[in-house]
Amino acid sequence: MNKETLLDCHARITPYIHDTPVLTSGSINKIADTSVFFKCENFQRAGAYKIRGATNAILLLSDEQRKNGVVTHSSGNFAQAVALAAKSLGITAHIVMPSSAPEIKKIGVMEYGGTMYECEPTLEARQAMADKIGRETGATFLHPSNNENVIVGQGTAALELLKDIPDLDFIFCPVGGGGLIAGSSLAATYFGKNCAVIGGEPFEADDAYRSLLSGKIEGNDTVNTIADGLKTTLGDKNFPIIKEHVSKIIRVTENEIVAAMRLVWERMKIIIEPSSAVTVAALLRDAKENPKNYLDKKVGIIISGGNVDLGNLPF
Amino acid sequence: MNKETLLDCHARITPYIHDTPVLTSGSINKIADTSVFFKCENFQRAGAYKIRGATNAILLLSDEQRKNGVVTHSSGNFAQAVALAAKSLGITAHIVMPSSAPEIKKIGVMEYGGTMYECEPTLEARQAMADKIGRETGATFLHPSNNENVIVGQGTAALELLKDIPDLDFIFCPVGGGGLIAGSSLAATYFGKNCAVIGGEPFEADDAYRSLLSGKIEGNDTVNTIADGLKTTLGDKNFPIIKEHVSKIIRVTENEIVAAMRLVWERMKIIIEPSSAVTVAALLRDAKENPKNYLDKKVGIIISGGNVDLGNLPF
Repeated sequence: MNKETLLDCHARITPYIHDTPVLTSGSINKIADTSVFFKCENFQRAGAYKIRGATNAILLLSDEQRKNGVVTHSSGNFAQAVALAAKSLGITAHIVMPSSAPEIKKIGVMEYGGTMYECEPTLEARQAMADKIGRETGATFLHPSNNENVIVGQGTAALELLKDIPDLDFIFCPVGGGGLIAGSSLAATYFGKNCAVIGGEPFEADDAYRSLLSGKIEGNDTVNTIADGLKTTLGDKNFPIIKEHVSKIIRVTENEIVAAMRLVWERMKIIIEPSSAVTVAALLRDAKENPKNYLDKKVGIIISGGNVDLGNLPF
Repeated sequence: MNKETLLDCHARITPYIHDTPVLTSGSINKIADTSVFFKCENFQRAGAYKIRGATNAILLLSDEQRKNGVVTHSSGNFAQAVALAAKSLGITAHIVMPSSAPEIKKIGVMEYGGTMYECEPTLEARQAMADKIGRETGATFLHPSNNENVIVGQGTAALELLKDIPDLDFIFCPVGGGGLIAGSSLAATYFGKNCAVIGGEPFEADDAYRSLLSGKIEGNDTVNTIADGLKTTLGDKNFPIIKEHVSKIIRVTENEIVAAMRLVWERMKIIIEPSSAVTVAALLRDAKENPKNYLDKKVGIIISGGNVDLGNLPF
């Protein structure tokens, strides 16, 4: 995965994705005392950055593989992304979703024409059902984050952000399965000018924070977080990239997540999901603790998605 | 008020306002079976188009008038707009708000440095308190909608929209006090190419609809609508303009308003207030009843604001 891998991927998926806008907010700049550039993947197709990696992975399937379709498991955004990407490219998508996934994400999968299978809300149950469907249908398994073609695809959001704002000092990403932050850190390394990548993670699902400390992939015993997209753990494909290229991971409380979400909704009038608010909360926490690090700096934030269950809001 | 009045106004206020983005939504185009262009004044300073008229009116005060400041009454968005515009221009703002106004709008006024006065939630009480403050302080009264300088200022949103999309067939506006739709209809007349202006109004506050029928300004006996910005009635400055230049007014139910608000939040990931959802609901209703009118047409919608009390949502 070098500079050309990312550029080729971006050229390959560009016809199928939006080059999402970069927004700013005077009042959030004032609160954080720095300049923040929000890469709005909540405006992306299917409401999240995930379509990037899904599209790249599907476009790189062989003709034989395309015939049998794809299968994945996801708590929501990757599920919708695969369903939509598969539909755009005319192939079949089997989607395994935990029963606990937000209703709007389940409906999204079905609206995009994916075949949805519900399972118990554990990573083991998700993988087991996806494996079974793969064996029975011959569908190729697409992992939502631990797949090189997916990782590179997710990195194209940061690539576009750096094209718009080339001299970013930081890029903040949420950390769930690790695909977005791994891809973003590759983009920052190849296309940034000394641009550090910082992860945001809930205290309630801080496996990546602990993994970076211990040097090996750690799990979560419990995942009691509102950030439903960040409950998964790192994989062997993205962890080495994260270890090499990510500066640090900042953990935030559930209250900080909800307050950051509300702040963005109220001040910017855009809808971001809790997993995206984690990154905003991480910046606000770090900017308060280490204000000098951010003085006269430019901070990019990947707003990962905007798929929120409006019937079940935290305020 | 001719073409030059609008152009001069736009040049005058441009340093103090945002040229807000025009967004589109594939899924809403599909539902309405037409092409819709959303002029996003929810991204405007203070979260609504009102800063346009407020800034224009204040910039046109004499030096003597500026010394004594301004006074207005408003259920919210004009209040915040006057407070912010006055602050930007270094003058004092006295703001009368009905006790029923959304909390976030009251907080906004105080954050922008306006002096806030609460009154009973009737138009009579609002006007009486504003008159009293004017007598005591010498402040100039700015009416939120029945003032020529305000009307022209509000028309600059449609002016910008027509600069971006010159061949619009329709512009939809909400109708409250009538300032926005009067100004927009002037802009459509002077800068559109056969562009019809259509108003959206709640059945629960349909004074403008009835006024156009009877030919004189009608009031509302009750205003039981979620669209808190649309409870006021037309004035003698804007009604003649509306009579001359507005094609029709479409009324919508409270359920249609909430459904349209939710649709925009879910599909576009932007926060619009109920008064703005009225216009989306009006388009959806008319596009369903008269689909041929919208086939292969371009429809502009002024999304008037995004100031919503997140602690008090209808879903």
